[in-house]
Amino acid sequence: MEKELVFGHQSPDTDAIGTAIAYSFLQNKLGYNTEAVALGEPNDETMFALNKFGFQAPRVIKTAANEVEKVMLVDHNEPQQSVSDIDKVKVTHVVDHHRIMNFNTSSPLFYLAEPVGCTSTIVWKLYKHFAIAIPQNIAGIMLSAIISDTLLLKSPTTTEDDCKAVKELAKIANVDYENYGLAELKAGTNIASKSEDDLIKLDAKTFELKDKKVRVAQINVVDLPEAMGRKAAFLKAMESAIATDHYDLFMLLITNVLDSNSTAIVAGSSEAQQLFEKAFGQIIDSEISLPGVVSRKKQVVPPLTNAFS
Amino acid sequence: MEKELVFGHQSPDTDAIGTAIAYSFLQNKLGYNTEAVALGEPNDETMFALNKFGFQAPRVIKTAANEVEKVMLVDHNEPQQSVSDIDKVKVTHVVDHHRIMNFNTSSPLFYLAEPVGCTSTIVWKLYKHFAIAIPQNIAGIMLSAIISDTLLLKSPTTTEDDCKAVKELAKIANVDYENYGLAELKAGTNIASKSEDDLIKLDAKTFELKDKKVRVAQINVVDLPEAMGRKAAFLKAMESAIATDHYDLFMLLITNVLDSNSTAIVAGSSEAQQLFEKAFGQIIDSEISLPGVVSRKKQVVPPLTNAFS
Repeated sequence: MEKELVFGHQSPDTDAIGTAIAYSFLQNKLGYNTEAVALGEPNDETMFALNKFGFQAPRVIKTAANEVEKVMLVDHNEPQQSVSDIDKVKVTHVVDHHRIMNFNTSSPLFYLAEPVGCTSTIVWKLYKHFAIAIPQNIAGIMLSAIISDTLLLKSPTTTEDDCKAVKELAKIANVDYENYGLAELKAGTNIASKSEDDLIKLDAKTFELKDKKVRVAQINVVDLPEAMGRKAAFLKAMESAIATDHYDLFMLLITNVLDSNSTAIVAGSSEAQQLFEKAFGQIIDSEISLPGVVSRKKQVVPPLTNAFS
Repeated sequence: MEKELVFGHQSPDTDAIGTAIAYSFLQNKLGYNTEAVALGEPNDETMFALNKFGFQAPRVIKTAANEVEKVMLVDHNEPQQSVSDIDKVKVTHVVDHHRIMNFNTSSPLFYLAEPVGCTSTIVWKLYKHFAIAIPQNIAGIMLSAIISDTLLLKSPTTTEDDCKAVKELAKIANVDYENYGLAELKAGTNIASKSEDDLIKLDAKTFELKDKKVRVAQINVVDLPEAMGRKAAFLKAMESAIATDHYDLFMLLITNVLDSNSTAIVAGSSEAQQLFEKAFGQIIDSEISLPGVVSRKKQVVPPLTNAFS
């Protein structure tokens, strides 16, 4: 059987890396010959989960066509989030939980998307569908992915399926998911050792909202005052990104994973900032408190889309 | 529960109509409130199957947004093959077996595609997955769809899953699938009573290949010489469609369902005809023999896509 690579999106998170590992294992059980790889190094949270369940970080690839003709995508479909030469390989399988955008193929393929909190929840269902036993370490890494994407089932993206998956996977992985989940999320909150420049790139996405280019970065913390103590330096890094990449607005969402509240630091043109205020209320001294806001996809992008349209 | 419409593509075939009926029934069992409709009147073959299993032809709609906000698509995803106002409704579910092209959404959705011969094969698997019993008439219409799309399991698009589905569904529907299948296919081959204008619209799809607009129509026959006796009239109808709808190429694939061979009649700009010849060999006197070619999806669109790219 011809080898295929399985990978998640660029700037990989625990869903992108964990689900690639779990889906590759499943596909190999079903007779495919796959290797899980990644489009970047794991972040601290993902490293914590990989170590906990005895995995090495997947090999990082920059291109795919130099080694395979076929690939399988997890946790993304949009070409600009995928491997740089995605147009040179054939996508045979996609498992995802995002909107579908600019994803075009010349042949039929396997594509399964569901509007759930995490791609691993869908892969967990596939294991059940094919009656493939889930090994303890694979259960652990899928559990870690769901905890990460749903902020321990607290994000508004969480569905009943995600809750069921977490409970069943925690049993197989033999961990208390609440204790483990908090430890996992905390592992991703060590911002002290990183520069502001690195932190605003760690988990950032660009959105084209009408004629405006909006960058939304998110970092998780357990100590909000510690993070806000670096506000001037964050603003400097954001202003520099705005100048280089021509963003109209840069929003840094700093989320406290312990109480699910966020504070945002905002920079950009006065026109874009006014539209931002239409969406979320007044920015005071470049910041705004956003209690209960944890999901970029569900709580940030839709109000911004409305305000900018 | 807010009502949703379920439908297949324009110029509906037995898969588009039969699978819409079967998927709507399944979704209603799962708690949705759906109605199966169609984007056109059933063809002779589909009418034969509907009659055999006691169904009325589904209501034909021209637009969807005037009655619902949400829809579910079967057997297609490309917007130009869908309802005319597809951009005004939200697609919540897609079940399909085609390539994905120009299908973009603003939100996550349920999307299941598999590279099998017929969409009903996927819906049959969904019934099993959700452990929903398949009524006799629903089994019959799904069986009819698979027979139609796979030309009684002879098309190269046929997979093991299609064969398994046909055998299981025939048992539930209580028919001998080979006898019934041949009768069903023959019911769709009566071309004597139809005008060339109607015949080239019966099962036709438009493809955007690079900057070219290509129309591929297919008719099933049991007597190829009878069909080719009308070649001049077919060409006239095709030239007229080219003038009206600005196609660069119009290909009419005439398939003998008894021996699985086809002859194509081809019209269009000389540039497009040259690209066609790159894909299939020389067009002689506006026609080309295509032995063993029965599948537009698997044997026509991929070589055309390559030649036009």
